[in-house]
Amino acid sequence: MQTLFSLEHAQALDAADPLRHFRQRFVFAEPELIYLDGNSLGRLTQASVNLARELVERQWGERLIRSWNEGWFDLPLRVGGKLAPLLGAHADEVAIADSTSVNLFKLAVAALRQQRGRTRILTDDLNFPSDLYVLQGAIDLLGSGHRLEIVRSPDGVHGPVDALLTQLDDDVALVVLSHTVFKSGYIYDMAAITAAAHAVGALVLWDLSHSVGSVPVALRDANADLAIGCTYKYVNGGPGAPALLYVRRDLQASLRNPISGWMGQHDPFAFGLEYVAAPGMRHFLTGTPPVLSLALIEPGVDLLAEAGLAALRAKSVQQTEYFIALWAARLAPVGYTLKSPRQAAQRGSHVSLGHVEGWRINQALIRDLGVLPDFRAPDNIRLGFAPLYTRFADLYHAAERLRRAVDEGVYARYSLQRTEVT
Amino acid sequence: MQTLFSLEHAQALDAADPLRHFRQRFVFAEPELIYLDGNSLGRLTQASVNLARELVERQWGERLIRSWNEGWFDLPLRVGGKLAPLLGAHADEVAIADSTSVNLFKLAVAALRQQRGRTRILTDDLNFPSDLYVLQGAIDLLGSGHRLEIVRSPDGVHGPVDALLTQLDDDVALVVLSHTVFKSGYIYDMAAITAAAHAVGALVLWDLSHSVGSVPVALRDANADLAIGCTYKYVNGGPGAPALLYVRRDLQASLRNPISGWMGQHDPFAFGLEYVAAPGMRHFLTGTPPVLSLALIEPGVDLLAEAGLAALRAKSVQQTEYFIALWAARLAPVGYTLKSPRQAAQRGSHVSLGHVEGWRINQALIRDLGVLPDFRAPDNIRLGFAPLYTRFADLYHAAERLRRAVDEGVYARYSLQRTEVT
Repeated sequence: MQTLFSLEHAQALDAADPLRHFRQRFVFAEPELIYLDGNSLGRLTQASVNLARELVERQWGERLIRSWNEGWFDLPLRVGGKLAPLLGAHADEVAIADSTSVNLFKLAVAALRQQRGRTRILTDDLNFPSDLYVLQGAIDLLGSGHRLEIVRSPDGVHGPVDALLTQLDDDVALVVLSHTVFKSGYIYDMAAITAAAHAVGALVLWDLSHSVGSVPVALRDANADLAIGCTYKYVNGGPGAPALLYVRRDLQASLRNPISGWMGQHDPFAFGLEYVAAPGMRHFLTGTPPVLSLALIEPGVDLLAEAGLAALRAKSVQQTEYFIALWAARLAPVGYTLKSPRQAAQRGSHVSLGHVEGWRINQALIRDLGVLPDFRAPDNIRLGFAPLYTRFADLYHAAERLRRAVDEGVYARYSLQRTEVT
Repeated sequence: MQTLFSLEHAQALDAADPLRHFRQRFVFAEPELIYLDGNSLGRLTQASVNLARELVERQWGERLIRSWNEGWFDLPLRVGGKLAPLLGAHADEVAIADSTSVNLFKLAVAALRQQRGRTRILTDDLNFPSDLYVLQGAIDLLGSGHRLEIVRSPDGVHGPVDALLTQLDDDVALVVLSHTVFKSGYIYDMAAITAAAHAVGALVLWDLSHSVGSVPVALRDANADLAIGCTYKYVNGGPGAPALLYVRRDLQASLRNPISGWMGQHDPFAFGLEYVAAPGMRHFLTGTPPVLSLALIEPGVDLLAEAGLAALRAKSVQQTEYFIALWAARLAPVGYTLKSPRQAAQRGSHVSLGHVEGWRINQALIRDLGVLPDFRAPDNIRLGFAPLYTRFADLYHAAERLRRAVDEGVYARYSLQRTEVT
């Protein structure tokens, strides 16, 4: 008879998984590897293998400059428009361009200029440090006395919602938060935060990097103002693929992209000497996009749309619940702590575990135990579950190996000294 | 007996070309096509075909997140360092990141902030319109009363050197020029302009997009301050490949990148909440780079280094001289005007021709006559010669077909109405 903590049970869950066939759409060059870092770099789709050859060998190699008229010019808005339904946005509210950081700079600066007279910017200590860096740079540049206030999480896991709401007043220009936070996987209530911010006249800018493709996002329903996010995690767009940016339709005309380049010019081929912004989302574009990295986002978007976000979210929740059950039974006893929310509704598609030997355990997992998680200082082992391709059996094996790393002392062979980034 | 204006003569020039073997290193999917747009999108190298498969199928598909430690993190500075000798710069003065426009924004804003108190920015009407747009946006953002002064070329061909020198005074913060200008191909004397600007305390920012890979650039010898430029023209880096940026070593510590992201953070994996700039060029990086588009620059850089800039320049000059001789004999009589400098030392690797029927001729060339030039409004047919792969026979055929387009009235079947971008 099966117990909950058996490989057979995990395999039965896989057999019943309505998304199980999507795994075949990905490349598995190393079938034994338990890859739990799809929240850092998503896997390669089979379609992208073919598209990469088409892009390089036919579109670049054969069609050459003609390819700009045969589809390349349209990529930023066309792929953005295709991603929009996965964000609960209109097609004309999303574009793909630049990096997440550059997009954050553009939208944050645009928002702060529109919110003239207000000086406070709220964020939290669960946000990507890079987002804080970009905001610090923007504030320094604007030189208009803005203050970035980093509200502290009560426990390092949950967002400081009450503290944020208390801090809101009519001097707040902008609230910048990760919708799903990168360490614990906590999910903010987008609609509630947005409504509270709007009540005092503040704008909210959401970083969707850890949400898009695994956590439902409803930008329109939440009346969200602005959003950015990367496409190389659960969207499987490829390493460093350019980033999404969303501007709600009614804000597009009043916000100005501070990095005004020819892709946002109303008639780029007139070669006029004065910048005149294109209408709509297009003026948030700047320079020529990296075509190969941009075009390769599309197969991942197609797969997500085919699977449907409801099914993806259902599997993701089932997987994080299953893994937390494994943690409680098998991993808590050997010193692992749960650093993600217990409530499924507040949790994205990854689970973070803490352990005093986290760094060395992570080394053992990668080098000896065939598991690829990622590590976030000081002690955080982050296990990402990509519902398109992660199996319940993978989670079972991962939990067993996490246990062995401690139980059998595998980690002890590694130095306490961190010698590389992971 | 050969005449100068025969295919045999062109073929003899090709047979004597010391760089002729480099043509084999490129993909020719459509061998009959006369491709003279390498100054807009360079051709695909054979090495890039293989590297693209390696990047997608092995580095992304198989090594997954591990590839960041196996080379991806180093790409911006490593490929930049490799490009540096082709710019006459030190390896630690060049990086590859973002688009040309974003890099211009970063460096122009950094320079203007350092030059506090000075209000004038000089450029010319031969510069890329996109560069003017970025500067206009930066000025508007800084809100510190800067004025962009667009000095007019005396003839639309040559840079307004005298006017620029006359305009220099101690209120000039920054001079921004294309080293080789995109329409006429005029080359500025970098050392002379830089010295004159330095004499009044101004900085100079060069756009090298139409120089790098075909026109020798000697940033250090000219004591140049700042430069940007794209890598998808004569470098053959692929469509929209990320751009170069150069900051002279002694300026790196005093200039601040206004878009401060995690790639420029001194210790990005400590996940500290305060931005602390990395030393040297690294702090001019911002977000995660588009790895595929970035890595594919390297084969093009390698080919240029192997050929050597002196040999590339010698062939480029020989080709533009040869083409201008063909123009004088065969094309001037049917109404083509030369819109590039006559003096080789002032001319980059493309030749621009004007014709009152330029737009329709360009259509005929592309659709009927197997020639791919590019067109710049209002009447400019731009013919780019990439010394790594353009043959003298290509130039001979191009000239004959340009003549036929008019002589045989081929252009007349096309509408005067412009219906698409080229």
